[in-house]
Amino acid sequence: MIKVGIVGGTGYTGVELLRLLATHPHVEVVAITSRGEAGRPVDDLFPNLRGHFDLCFSDPAAGELDQCDVVFFATPHGVAQSSVPDLLEKGIKVIDLSADFRIRDIAVWEKWYNQPHTCPELVGEAVYGLPETNREAIKNARLIACPGCYPTSVQLGFKPLLEKGLVNPEDLIANSASGASGAGRQANVANLLTEVSDSFKAYGVSGHRHLPEIEQGLKDIAGGQVNLTFVPHLLPMIRGIHSTLYATLNTKDVDLQQLYEDCFKDEPFVDVMPAGSHPQTRSVKGSNVCRISVFCPQGGDKVVVLVVEDNLVKGASGQAIQNMNIMFGLPETSGLEAPALLP
Amino acid sequence: MIKVGIVGGTGYTGVELLRLLATHPHVEVVAITSRGEAGRPVDDLFPNLRGHFDLCFSDPAAGELDQCDVVFFATPHGVAQSSVPDLLEKGIKVIDLSADFRIRDIAVWEKWYNQPHTCPELVGEAVYGLPETNREAIKNARLIACPGCYPTSVQLGFKPLLEKGLVNPEDLIANSASGASGAGRQANVANLLTEVSDSFKAYGVSGHRHLPEIEQGLKDIAGGQVNLTFVPHLLPMIRGIHSTLYATLNTKDVDLQQLYEDCFKDEPFVDVMPAGSHPQTRSVKGSNVCRISVFCPQGGDKVVVLVVEDNLVKGASGQAIQNMNIMFGLPETSGLEAPALLP
Amino acid sequence: MIKVGIVGGTGYTGVELLRLLATHPHVEVVAITSRGEAGRPVDDLFPNLRGHFDLCFSDPAAGELDQCDVVFFATPHGVAQSSVPDLLEKGIKVIDLSADFRIRDIAVWEKWYNQPHTCPELVGEAVYGLPETNREAIKNARLIACPGCYPTSVQLGFKPLLEKGLVNPEDLIANSASGASGAGRQANVANLLTEVSDSFKAYGVSGHRHLPEIEQGLKDIAGGQVNLTFVPHLLPMIRGIHSTLYATLNTKDVDLQQLYEDCFKDEPFVDVMPAGSHPQTRSVKGSNVCRISVFCPQGGDKVVVLVVEDNLVKGASGQAIQNMNIMFGLPETSGLEAPALLP
Amino acid sequence: MIKVGIVGGTGYTGVELLRLLATHPHVEVVAITSRGEAGRPVDDLFPNLRGHFDLCFSDPAAGELDQCDVVFFATPHGVAQSSVPDLLEKGIKVIDLSADFRIRDIAVWEKWYNQPHTCPELVGEAVYGLPETNREAIKNARLIACPGCYPTSVQLGFKPLLEKGLVNPEDLIANSASGASGAGRQANVANLLTEVSDSFKAYGVSGHRHLPEIEQGLKDIAGGQVNLTFVPHLLPMIRGIHSTLYATLNTKDVDLQQLYEDCFKDEPFVDVMPAGSHPQTRSVKGSNVCRISVFCPQGGDKVVVLVVEDNLVKGASGQAIQNMNIMFGLPETSGLEAPALLP
Repeated sequence: MIKVGIVGGTGYTGVELLRLLATHPHVEVVAITSRGEAGRPVDDLFPNLRGHFDLCFSDPAAGELDQCDVVFFATPHGVAQSSVPDLLEKGIKVIDLSADFRIRDIAVWEKWYNQPHTCPELVGEAVYGLPETNREAIKNARLIACPGCYPTSVQLGFKPLLEKGLVNPEDLIANSASGASGAGRQANVANLLTEVSDSFKAYGVSGHRHLPEIEQGLKDIAGGQVNLTFVPHLLPMIRGIHSTLYATLNTKDVDLQQLYEDCFKDEPFVDVMPAGSHPQTRSVKGSNVCRISVFCPQGGDKVVVLVVEDNLVKGASGQAIQNMNIMFGLPETSGLEAPALLP
Repeated sequence: MIKVGIVGGTGYTGVELLRLLATHPHVEVVAITSRGEAGRPVDDLFPNLRGHFDLCFSDPAAGELDQCDVVFFATPHGVAQSSVPDLLEKGIKVIDLSADFRIRDIAVWEKWYNQPHTCPELVGEAVYGLPETNREAIKNARLIACPGCYPTSVQLGFKPLLEKGLVNPEDLIANSASGASGAGRQANVANLLTEVSDSFKAYGVSGHRHLPEIEQGLKDIAGGQVNLTFVPHLLPMIRGIHSTLYATLNTKDVDLQQLYEDCFKDEPFVDVMPAGSHPQTRSVKGSNVCRISVFCPQGGDKVVVLVVEDNLVKGASGQAIQNMNIMFGLPETSGLEAPALLP
Repeated sequence: MIKVGIVGGTGYTGVELLRLLATHPHVEVVAITSRGEAGRPVDDLFPNLRGHFDLCFSDPAAGELDQCDVVFFATPHGVAQSSVPDLLEKGIKVIDLSADFRIRDIAVWEKWYNQPHTCPELVGEAVYGLPETNREAIKNARLIACPGCYPTSVQLGFKPLLEKGLVNPEDLIANSASGASGAGRQANVANLLTEVSDSFKAYGVSGHRHLPEIEQGLKDIAGGQVNLTFVPHLLPMIRGIHSTLYATLNTKDVDLQQLYEDCFKDEPFVDVMPAGSHPQTRSVKGSNVCRISVFCPQGGDKVVVLVVEDNLVKGASGQAIQNMNIMFGLPETSGLEAPALLP
Repeated sequence: MIKVGIVGGTGYTGVELLRLLATHPHVEVVAITSRGEAGRPVDDLFPNLRGHFDLCFSDPAAGELDQCDVVFFATPHGVAQSSVPDLLEKGIKVIDLSADFRIRDIAVWEKWYNQPHTCPELVGEAVYGLPETNREAIKNARLIACPGCYPTSVQLGFKPLLEKGLVNPEDLIANSASGASGAGRQANVANLLTEVSDSFKAYGVSGHRHLPEIEQGLKDIAGGQVNLTFVPHLLPMIRGIHSTLYATLNTKDVDLQQLYEDCFKDEPFVDVMPAGSHPQTRSVKGSNVCRISVFCPQGGDKVVVLVVEDNLVKGASGQAIQNMNIMFGLPETSGLEAPALLP
């Protein structure tokens, strides 16, 4: 059994790691830390876990993480940086769900996250944990930077087009929408049910932190410059991301459906829907699957790609476990086989 | 035009007062105070009011309330107490939406609200602002204690039965459910969309602050002792209260439908539904109407009463305006005529 | 008092007309027809209207519409066509909320609505009822074709850019999302709460009936050819449309905020938000206002316009009443002054 | 591997059986029938199952059920009756999720379900599938009548009190609320998102079909006459039942918390919460667990019991699988171990 630790287990990605790991056949969760909740049983905070874990939150200083084979960071941005070097030195692998090691250009990171980076020396070693583009590197990584929720959906959706050079990379649009769990479990008037429910809005149109991460990933795929307009929106629901992607085709000589099916045919967690289908976020609720459809409306030169994922699973904790499975030589789908909850 | 001031206008009962007063033909809102938001335009905080008010929040110390004919307190419990005496002395009427003056027994108030009452001398003068039981006293009041949201629904629902002595007053049950706006506009993890949405729970079963208020009101109606079990629940929606009331009939010789229709036949805001109807909270969303149905299931001795209201309107701001209309000799329905928003 | 009739009053645009007309100072609703519900009191079907209307649905054949000054059609597509000529001949004005008279090219209409047009001779006379582009023609119209819900938001959002020729008209994108009330009050598995709630999806990506209507309107504004990619989405909520519009600027030399404020400065129902604001659909729930924001993200050449409206009000019944006010020389805002319901 | 068939797989209990059986280690689903959808791939109707089943719906007449060890009926009431005898004769066990075999008194069944019972001879043999009261009989049953969703919650909640004779059995109240999935996957205006969302109502107050089923079960537990007032309500959400139960204690000499913990201490799917807790429906979403709390508010003689379950799992498909596990000598929790989805 792989011994797992979780840092910052009081947020939604923390409880989602626990939910998924509860039935993982090769894993034992041995430590979960939280400064604020140290000593409190995990299932007191998250009653869905009653009967599944006999763990209490511990103070990170108590050293319980030292017994782990791998530690997940489910912390706000800026936290993992300071603890990762020590863990790596002890031979413990790290999978970071925060943005700390996602962006290779330190200056760009510091600008968008508005703080100095305290561990720039490890940024180069960190492997960006998107298995569909980076599986080989993940196998041997000590430190994984898990992709953001929006970036996962946008990169998977554009991948077939960009890697074949079929669209103008300088004119990409990602119109994305996320459920409210993407904002985390923080006390905040703006995320009250009374403020979010029965309403819809865009936010961060001037610039969102996921923009540089997405652009870096798309450049890697395209092998050259890209330009993206990214507009996130907030959905009146808990889970789910839907990205509607727009690009301009530079050829008519392509079977888009076949292109997408071929690109992802060996991927266990990317499902290309039958031609003409519109994926619904509920079809992936609670599951690690990303579903994709591709259209060329009215036979014009615009391609429209629809991508859905569960922001807490493929967009965060599920993808983190997928990375762990790859790193430890387990079947990639271990612990991630359950179908989505529908209805 | 009646000059109106609002103290504590940044919460949901504050914005609801403004929404309703925006189209009131006999009222001008001249001041709205908030310590935290002083100087900020009201419509910056509440964009639905853009184009309706050219007001900024002002500091209560700035004295703008002095020009008012009537001041509404839409403040947390304990705030109105300290300001009311000064306003009354200046000849300004006060309508308090908080619980400060609702309970006549000071010791009971202090126990349930867990603080000393700083203005006990005015509690006796305050008139409990439930027009359906107290209209005459309201006409001449200087100080109105507006009923709580749950208490309004429970008192109206039991009134016909208790005032005629048709049920056992020692065995009353009120199973109530409220939308999340009842918890106010406070940053609080428990009221995030991600916590409340797609779920349902009871709360405060051991004891809820509205219990003593309801029992006091029911005693006044019954003219004697009552005993109530009150269980509130939290609904995954914004507005609306639904109370399901249970009592044991002490006679079979009563036409319940006729009883309810007769009791409320002159009430502009209580609508007794046709026999067999089940009122929906959405049928009163945004309106000051309370709809009621009465059943005697399976011909037994239990009577079941269903009551719906909008907790922010008949349960708070609309009822406050209804009180104002009565106090100032206006038509009781002024500013409160619009139908509910459905769907 | 203007005598108003409504044909097809059992759907959501029908009940919304009634809700808004209930407080309209210059209107009396004298007839509302429904074949299926003839004889049933209106407030039995829509309990929010109890106390507001003493009307029953009547059979259209009963002739009650003959006494009207104006008749609204809130019917499925294809119904108005057959009744309008007779009403116009009797001197009764008609405001059609369906698509029957929106598209000037009969062949295009017949292709998208998949039925023959039975009244092509009136299509030329019908005035497209978007006051912000067509007010003068509306004043003298006998027959108004009310714009669709999506088309209203997209045309208003692109208007300032297209009429000044500031963007490439051949590369326009409208990424729109609507609440479920846009699908009407039809028994349909796909629109059950259990299917729509807590989920999000695109639909009609290959082609949606509103596309030709929007393109016709944008051409009129631009004075030349346009090309639009239009992707509608279904929101897990009742009311509200949000359109996120993308276009490529052909100049940097424009103050977008000023452009929008100038364009709509005399419009009573278009509210240009302060720079940097993100309009929320809830800020217009129940009101006839359309709120717009404009961005130029990251200083690039893409302009992003955010538009919100209530699909049942500015997107349907409210706009129909606005047209009526203009046609009858009433203040344009009569009956449409109430602020949106928030929260 | 146990060979499983499902009759009527197009509804919500059908897809929920498939979702749960997808990861059941001892089961293979070999047939799923639907007259209306024969030939259609199951995952075309329910895209959450893509990649999990390679099955098409088949016509029940095609005989594919004959190869099964057990057949689940997820059909409307009245359907199982006609098919069960034939299957039993072939040695196939049957687990019926409908109401056909729940009520022992045929006349009562016929009155409440308003149709003749076509298979009364098997009603006596059918075992009521509530493991917590009936485990031994289930082990040897050929035909299981799965309890209704409301009845499961009410019987489990009252069980400790009734079997010890601690409350007045003639004065029981069950105030229950269910998510909309309880109404099934039928085209119906009343269950549209636009009708159910953002609202709450009681229904069936005069009498609901679950009343006789609950009373039969409570009598079995109490060993004597009971009288129940049962009021169901419709919640604006998909999954979850919450029952708030009221009874009058006939003794003060009881430790209620201990009573409940003792009663259910060996039950794998009944979780008695810590004293003072309020269970939330979301804590059991997608799981087979029923969580219970018990209160004695204000030290009076009323006991209040709170019970939550997922109506599609413990209230239907999960309980059906729990019954199957017991019948086939499998671990009772097989395929039912995953924690609830929260948030």
